[in-house]
Amino acid sequence: MIARVYVNFKKTILDPQGRTIKKTLESLGYKDVLDVRQGKVFTLKFKDSLSREQVEEIIKKIGRDVLSNPVIEEFDYEVVE
Amino acid sequence: MIARVYVNFKKTILDPQGRTIKKTLESLGYKDVLDVRQGKVFTLKFKDSLSREQVEEIIKKIGRDVLSNPVIEEFDYEVVE
Repeated sequence: MIARVYVNFKKTILDPQGRTIKKTLESLGYKDVLDVRQGKVFTLKFKDSLSREQVEEIIKKIGRDVLSNPVIEEFDYEVVE
Repeated sequence: MIARVYVNFKKTILDPQGRTIKKTLESLGYKDVLDVRQGKVFTLKFKDSLSREQVEEIIKKIGRDVLSNPVIEEFDYEVVE
């Protein structure tokens, strides 16, 4: 089973990389891009013997404890196959 | 309109961050995670007046020219709303 975990800064946290890319796009003429946020995506491969529930349980733990910093970041996930 | 652009190392490129996380998870007892790849995700907000086709056209350009390094990375995207 394969899942993707997305880690992004919380909405209230400034995202300097995203802002830099936004400005770069603007200077290149892409005026139709109103906002850019940069985050991380982790693609995790799980043993096929696990159920979807077991996979989600593991993701919820490692998303909080390993992959993100809960003080400034939030995560969500999707099981893709 | 909001789109997510995912940038990952090509399959043939070593992903040291992903490997480190894999090893960390292993040492924490998460033996059911077989592989981890770390990538970037860009959440882009577009002007609402654009059509889906226009948004996809812009993404294909900036995905290649700005957001990824085509020598070692590949990108894909989805329009989420």
